[in-house]
Amino acid sequence: MKLTRYMLVAVVVLAGGAAYMSVAPADADQATAPDFHFEIPAGYRDWRLISVAHEEGNLNDLRAVLGNDIAIKSYREGKLPFPDGAILARLAWTYVPSEENNKVFGRHQSFVAGDATNIQFMVKDSAKYAATGGWGFAQFNDGKPVDAAGLSGCYACHVPVKARDFVFTRYAP
Amino acid sequence: MKLTRYMLVAVVVLAGGAAYMSVAPADADQATAPDFHFEIPAGYRDWRLISVAHEEGNLNDLRAVLGNDIAIKSYREGKLPFPDGAILARLAWTYVPSEENNKVFGRHQSFVAGDATNIQFMVKDSAKYAATGGWGFAQFNDGKPVDAAGLSGCYACHVPVKARDFVFTRYAP
Repeated sequence: MKLTRYMLVAVVVLAGGAAYMSVAPADADQATAPDFHFEIPAGYRDWRLISVAHEEGNLNDLRAVLGNDIAIKSYREGKLPFPDGAILARLAWTYVPSEENNKVFGRHQSFVAGDATNIQFMVKDSAKYAATGGWGFAQFNDGKPVDAAGLSGCYACHVPVKARDFVFTRYAP
Repeated sequence: MKLTRYMLVAVVVLAGGAAYMSVAPADADQATAPDFHFEIPAGYRDWRLISVAHEEGNLNDLRAVLGNDIAIKSYREGKLPFPDGAILARLAWTYVPSEENNKVFGRHQSFVAGDATNIQFMVKDSAKYAATGGWGFAQFNDGKPVDAAGLSGCYACHVPVKARDFVFTRYAP
């Protein structure tokens, strides 16, 4: 996406002080596929666990969803929509059989996290991301952000869970 | 395991102030199967993520291992053995296919965390648990502790990873 004079860059300092984002809202003519340009939120690896999952197929990963303090509070209180400032981080790792574990269990049953694959974020800002349910989407491959074209499908895939504020992952007790 | 006059019960207040354990060392004649009696460490669900895994077979779960601050520091610095006060928490949930997710992906590939199954802890206290590599082991089913007999096999299963201070789980970046 080309930069235009309409593009605003803001630095948002989140509650907690550790996370910074530069946010670039979409052009008016790309309302359904905005450029969710922000950096990896600092400290995300320290956030609390929401839940875990396994995706088969091409993804073939184990994943964990973490939330910043605002997101975790919202989950635990069962309050929707998530307030502005909520951020969800989806970590994922290759799905690797553990021969070490299998030996102990006495059978082939154990799969553990291998190398990291990519990281995805959902950032709630109901004004900036009004066109996409109030959520900005991002993915980083080896620390490098996926461009706007690569993120254009994020929102549409999340629409089926609009009733849960576009978030698939449920809190695991 | 029967209680004897040799049994000591101590209350250990862990660094951070939130976790309390009552610890009952083993009888002299049960050095390899001590009674690791302690309560669920308060606040464990807020601890940081170490890694995730999937166990097939009878377990059929998705799991996450969390660590308290002492454990996380040790992992990230790559320092072994874990210092006294380190605690690892293994959470697990039933392995449930997600029809909701599968619809979005367009195929049967997504498995998410269902109900919690049980919680396990490893607590490092090199003096109290000297007979078992410095680790105390516990499991809670629906909040109820598994008795000493049910924990008697924990240590033996962890011996194959003695070189990693008896801990299977590796840190997922």
